[in-house]
Amino acid sequence: MTDLLTTAAERSLADRFTATRMLTESLAAPLSAEDQTVQSMPDVSPTKWHRAHTTWFFETFLLDPGPADYRVYDPGFGYLFNSYYEGVGARYPRPNRGLVTRPGIEEIADYRRHVDEAMATLLERATDPDTIDLVELGIQHEQQHQELLLMDIKHVLSQNPMLPPYDTLTVPASTTGATAHGALSWTEHRGGVFDIGRSGDRFSFDNELPRHPEYLGDFSLCDRPVSCGQWLGFMDDGGYRRPELWLSDGWAIVQSEGWDCPLYWSEVDGAWYEYSLGGPVVVDAGRPVCHMSYYEADAFARWAGFRLPTEAEWEVAASTGPAGGRFLDQSTLHPVATAGADDKGSLFGDVWQWTSSAYAPYPGFEPAPGTVGEYNGKFMVNQYVLRGGSCATPPGHVRASYRNFFPPSARWAFSGMRLARTD
Amino acid sequence: MTDLLTTAAERSLADRFTATRMLTESLAAPLSAEDQTVQSMPDVSPTKWHRAHTTWFFETFLLDPGPADYRVYDPGFGYLFNSYYEGVGARYPRPNRGLVTRPGIEEIADYRRHVDEAMATLLERATDPDTIDLVELGIQHEQQHQELLLMDIKHVLSQNPMLPPYDTLTVPASTTGATAHGALSWTEHRGGVFDIGRSGDRFSFDNELPRHPEYLGDFSLCDRPVSCGQWLGFMDDGGYRRPELWLSDGWAIVQSEGWDCPLYWSEVDGAWYEYSLGGPVVVDAGRPVCHMSYYEADAFARWAGFRLPTEAEWEVAASTGPAGGRFLDQSTLHPVATAGADDKGSLFGDVWQWTSSAYAPYPGFEPAPGTVGEYNGKFMVNQYVLRGGSCATPPGHVRASYRNFFPPSARWAFSGMRLARTD
Amino acid sequence: MTDLLTTAAERSLADRFTATRMLTESLAAPLSAEDQTVQSMPDVSPTKWHRAHTTWFFETFLLDPGPADYRVYDPGFGYLFNSYYEGVGARYPRPNRGLVTRPGIEEIADYRRHVDEAMATLLERATDPDTIDLVELGIQHEQQHQELLLMDIKHVLSQNPMLPPYDTLTVPASTTGATAHGALSWTEHRGGVFDIGRSGDRFSFDNELPRHPEYLGDFSLCDRPVSCGQWLGFMDDGGYRRPELWLSDGWAIVQSEGWDCPLYWSEVDGAWYEYSLGGPVVVDAGRPVCHMSYYEADAFARWAGFRLPTEAEWEVAASTGPAGGRFLDQSTLHPVATAGADDKGSLFGDVWQWTSSAYAPYPGFEPAPGTVGEYNGKFMVNQYVLRGGSCATPPGHVRASYRNFFPPSARWAFSGMRLARTD
Amino acid sequence: MTDLLTTAAERSLADRFTATRMLTESLAAPLSAEDQTVQSMPDVSPTKWHRAHTTWFFETFLLDPGPADYRVYDPGFGYLFNSYYEGVGARYPRPNRGLVTRPGIEEIADYRRHVDEAMATLLERATDPDTIDLVELGIQHEQQHQELLLMDIKHVLSQNPMLPPYDTLTVPASTTGATAHGALSWTEHRGGVFDIGRSGDRFSFDNELPRHPEYLGDFSLCDRPVSCGQWLGFMDDGGYRRPELWLSDGWAIVQSEGWDCPLYWSEVDGAWYEYSLGGPVVVDAGRPVCHMSYYEADAFARWAGFRLPTEAEWEVAASTGPAGGRFLDQSTLHPVATAGADDKGSLFGDVWQWTSSAYAPYPGFEPAPGTVGEYNGKFMVNQYVLRGGSCATPPGHVRASYRNFFPPSARWAFSGMRLARTD
Repeated sequence: MTDLLTTAAERSLADRFTATRMLTESLAAPLSAEDQTVQSMPDVSPTKWHRAHTTWFFETFLLDPGPADYRVYDPGFGYLFNSYYEGVGARYPRPNRGLVTRPGIEEIADYRRHVDEAMATLLERATDPDTIDLVELGIQHEQQHQELLLMDIKHVLSQNPMLPPYDTLTVPASTTGATAHGALSWTEHRGGVFDIGRSGDRFSFDNELPRHPEYLGDFSLCDRPVSCGQWLGFMDDGGYRRPELWLSDGWAIVQSEGWDCPLYWSEVDGAWYEYSLGGPVVVDAGRPVCHMSYYEADAFARWAGFRLPTEAEWEVAASTGPAGGRFLDQSTLHPVATAGADDKGSLFGDVWQWTSSAYAPYPGFEPAPGTVGEYNGKFMVNQYVLRGGSCATPPGHVRASYRNFFPPSARWAFSGMRLARTD
Repeated sequence: MTDLLTTAAERSLADRFTATRMLTESLAAPLSAEDQTVQSMPDVSPTKWHRAHTTWFFETFLLDPGPADYRVYDPGFGYLFNSYYEGVGARYPRPNRGLVTRPGIEEIADYRRHVDEAMATLLERATDPDTIDLVELGIQHEQQHQELLLMDIKHVLSQNPMLPPYDTLTVPASTTGATAHGALSWTEHRGGVFDIGRSGDRFSFDNELPRHPEYLGDFSLCDRPVSCGQWLGFMDDGGYRRPELWLSDGWAIVQSEGWDCPLYWSEVDGAWYEYSLGGPVVVDAGRPVCHMSYYEADAFARWAGFRLPTEAEWEVAASTGPAGGRFLDQSTLHPVATAGADDKGSLFGDVWQWTSSAYAPYPGFEPAPGTVGEYNGKFMVNQYVLRGGSCATPPGHVRASYRNFFPPSARWAFSGMRLARTD
Repeated sequence: MTDLLTTAAERSLADRFTATRMLTESLAAPLSAEDQTVQSMPDVSPTKWHRAHTTWFFETFLLDPGPADYRVYDPGFGYLFNSYYEGVGARYPRPNRGLVTRPGIEEIADYRRHVDEAMATLLERATDPDTIDLVELGIQHEQQHQELLLMDIKHVLSQNPMLPPYDTLTVPASTTGATAHGALSWTEHRGGVFDIGRSGDRFSFDNELPRHPEYLGDFSLCDRPVSCGQWLGFMDDGGYRRPELWLSDGWAIVQSEGWDCPLYWSEVDGAWYEYSLGGPVVVDAGRPVCHMSYYEADAFARWAGFRLPTEAEWEVAASTGPAGGRFLDQSTLHPVATAGADDKGSLFGDVWQWTSSAYAPYPGFEPAPGTVGEYNGKFMVNQYVLRGGSCATPPGHVRASYRNFFPPSARWAFSGMRLARTD
Repeated sequence: MTDLLTTAAERSLADRFTATRMLTESLAAPLSAEDQTVQSMPDVSPTKWHRAHTTWFFETFLLDPGPADYRVYDPGFGYLFNSYYEGVGARYPRPNRGLVTRPGIEEIADYRRHVDEAMATLLERATDPDTIDLVELGIQHEQQHQELLLMDIKHVLSQNPMLPPYDTLTVPASTTGATAHGALSWTEHRGGVFDIGRSGDRFSFDNELPRHPEYLGDFSLCDRPVSCGQWLGFMDDGGYRRPELWLSDGWAIVQSEGWDCPLYWSEVDGAWYEYSLGGPVVVDAGRPVCHMSYYEADAFARWAGFRLPTEAEWEVAASTGPAGGRFLDQSTLHPVATAGADDKGSLFGDVWQWTSSAYAPYPGFEPAPGTVGEYNGKFMVNQYVLRGGSCATPPGHVRASYRNFFPPSARWAFSGMRLARTD
């Protein structure tokens, strides 16, 4: 898999297209036809749907309107594998994706080959900048679905009382040791007016634009994400039972859902375990805590006496520090350590970090023209921004200006948190 | 498949066990791993679950308490594949059966072989009447699941907008001709006190006992089940839009669900189609109408100026006539014809027939001792009795005293109806 | 109130009309405008709605189609106060009855006077048998709503954490003493074919007809309804925690609703109280237990080793014994005692008794022609029959053939139970 | 009522307390006991609950912890009339407020008098700044409930198919004329860093603090709120049927709820009416459109080619212009005109204006210590900010820094919108 992950900028577009397509298949490879079929909640999509939908994206936006001789693989697939683009017609209801057994995984593999071959031809000749931009968007889109595929299959397999592993994986003990979570270490940042958003002409999603000034006061960010050890401290202090720590909507869901620990945690005979993609592992105090909602992150910050950073604060801090981090290429598929001495100051990797910023358009935001303009803009409500990428994010996919987003109750992403304070 | 279906009484128990087990696998054979995994509504179970659950039944009630050297295949399966027996412990929630991807279909095949081998040994030595009764119950239980498997996969596949067939099947045109549904022909029955329920010492489910007297007035039953042509007449006359024809609860569901035809029917460019296990076929006026709820059957009867029979009336009539009918061995998996001249008077086969009788214990009913006593008794509320067997019922499985039952809103069984009148 | 309750058969129709109308107002008198407005669940109707709906019944079925000079009080009331008659047009959604603040209680009083005056004139001249039958039906209908009014307001007031009384009432201790519930005493009945249903030409609802033969085996009925003391024994023996005692649907609701005692019971510092219309009272072991669902009654009977009677058994027994019992004229509005020595054998009064009979049409049932034909027939599904009347039933309203009915999960009626056994 | 509304700053605290308390009673005066009891959806509270809750606020936060001789009116009221303060104990579930009939409106009037008398004594002696701050908070709190009372009773009465008026009110035609909505007129604002939030030591809610700098680009605001005439243009252009105009969550609710016009609008024989507190009135093209959700406001802005202002933009603009506007003292209880020549540039009154700003804490936000700290902070999620006050807002209550907030789907507030653009 390692080679597939070297999607370095110097590689050609065609190479990166191929590597991305192969990585998706590689991520699906450990999964049986049964595994690839199930949708465990409306937010989740089946693995085989991800494989088909990313293919449909290239077929619909590049091949169908492109080469005159392109033959659409199956006209019925447009209805089945359109995710949310109103501009290209009706679509199968999202909550029912797991009810569709056919096409099966072999036919979807054939569909992928059919599209990949046509794309190879197209890429040989492609010089039109709009086409190149769309291919790039399709690659980035598929990378997003690679992380979604892992999030989703984790949720699917967690429904099985036997908690089977996705694959044979080793989740190492934290390198920082169980005691590293005790003291907080901070990096200070001076306030002022800063430019936020993607700069230069390299690829970005439309939601990172336009670059624009924002005023920030003085602030500090913690050098490490919050650890499982710190989270256990919150739990031991009654964190899930004290309404004064919670937003009102968060407290309501704590009570209705009976939340008393992060998603995938369970207590067996007094010991805490978390379900990883390698199966259940003991909760390691030194590892970053993962799979908590915005509500929980916010309550933890209030309990700790600090707060979440805004997305602008995070971006300013991330723009100046090192960009290293643990991504999908580490192959643990689990956050393994809070940043240690070797990567102090890096804000990337291991876990996405909730910010206190509601997902909103930047001043002057313009969605792309046409149907791909539905990519981001229409979701800018009722969600919060996360930053930094995770152990399930393809390497090279994120950057300082990258905005991920989920509803405040969502827990199945590889979401964690980092504390901030006003100085 | 034909040979498997010859489960004649003269065959040995071991032979019938083997034939039944093989028929289940034969019914699952056309289905992919993806097909066998999905649960399209809480009432439906995945194909692979049916295959495992029927196996679990033999393991739990015969092998586990039986041979000292029997090794339980996987202790976790008890939790996954217990359907509803409170007496043998906790179980996985029924509405979530479709979320469990593992064991997959290959492992379930292995589980079946494991149990079948142990059962073969057990059957060689079995002489204890209780054991023989339990084996017989297990066979009858698996036959019930054979029909459920077909009902359930039909519902699963119908969720796919491409309406794929279960298998290559031919659904012949009705033999009675499109005009045969016009005139009603009746058979009259004198009233009196009749014994109802299973007699003799042959196998029956506990719900068919005890045999007991009931008083009936004079009545007549129609010689044929209601046909699609008659149903189209009901629809054309506003049957689904006239509240005076409906039970109040039925009218509420007509409105909330937007019912305007039987399940699996659809109108395309003015022509009516019904989805069969062979894929969509034109609605044939001469075929029995199928897949309607009790509410619809009751409304049709009121519209026609008649009524549904009681289960006692049906049983009295069926006990005197011929027992032939179209069952699973006809291999159409679809009701093909209202009873014609050749089988006039037979009340069996093609479609289960809704009766007006709420499912209730017979006077003096005693559930079997132990956990298998949960088989029937605890469901005797909020359901209505159907009689006669269908095109998806294994041959030899039903009899005049056989009681099937579904909630009045259920439509996914092969359910039809036959008119009755008070004379 | 006593005089209003003397609705003896020898009184004239006009007198009985007037007494019935006055009794309704008398039952509403203790209630404020606020009390009369609220609907605490979809099954419940506001007091002021009952007062208006019973009035609308006379206006719609007698006055509007009757005297040429009758002026409809307010044409908008037809929409607001039609309960369920599809035949007379659209109606306000039942679950929203509690959202309508106007007309208020004073205007409804005026509406009642307006209709009463017109009815007085009509009754002076009425000789047409159809008219007289409709007036009789209107009186009987209003009597049913008198009991509903009491059931409903009890549910409304029970939502108030202060548990206010409906009125100043004395709920006496049981006359039988706390120990009387220990031993069961039975009356035996021989089997045979019996005529069931209303006989003669006196008033009955259509659901009591036609009188028809049914076959019954030998059976016995308990001489007393089940007492609170017996129910405490069931609770103490884990009755609400043992799935083997319950119908499957019943067990599901026990778990989802957390039922562990009858409706209106609560435990405070180790003592059990029940909410009566006079406010909370200590649970008295000798009083009949009340406000349990069919599921609970069925589970209790199974626990006790007996069963519920069928409605035919109950009717046969009730047709031969004394008809005395404690009805609304006792003014306790609470069941006060299991039948003692003075009324041994009477099956009437105190609590409605669940039977094991699903509510179904009698053989040959014909609803009345026209819109009043919607009175009963369309509810004959998903309900069970109760017999005998209660402490909230107007005296003279019930008889041996009288069929009351509720869904098996309903608990807010004055419902109790009596054990039966097969001999 | 006029005098009660003169809550000018120069009046004493005691006078303002008295005037505020009297205004609440004056607003409830047109309503019957029935009207005051009903809760038409979980967001709505009954009028009598508002009257009691505002009283409970003074009792709980000032009287109970205050004068030694104060006698709590009824200890049970704490449970009934606590809105959401976890810090003072359990409370009756919000969605069930409409189920509580007692105390009735007379007893609540008595409760108010009891508290008012004790408060009068307390106010005579009050010099402690904390006490004075709490009284001020209680007054401001009650003013908020005055507007809620009007919003809520409008929703309650709108459930009645007869659409009764709250009171005899005249809703005048718009002064601007039906044609005034055609051309948009804008006021330009230069960008830069601005201080946002309440300044000085006058009263504010904690959510207006701390005052802090924000960077804004150049922008313009429309001189008038969007009019009904403009909204009809949106509707005529398919605004409610074009998914490309909508946020994804908004489009989902448009479809599930069938929205095709603002709340309280209805079309009768081709003419549009809106329900006002004076009853139905013809939709007047020149009046500000009211009762639309954030989703609708956002979709309208996209359709018009503009956007909603941020709350900071609105505040900067409002801080420099005139503060006049139509509030509750105009007694129309309906927005009557888009701002005309006489008040050009005023951003206040008639309708609350949705902004594009998610409701969030200002940098450095600190909730007040103690239970009153629950006033605002815990609601800072899943809501959007509205600015400017409405025709139902008590005069003197709002200011440029005032932040109102509702979920994006809420429509029952007097919510409107004003267009903005980036320059």
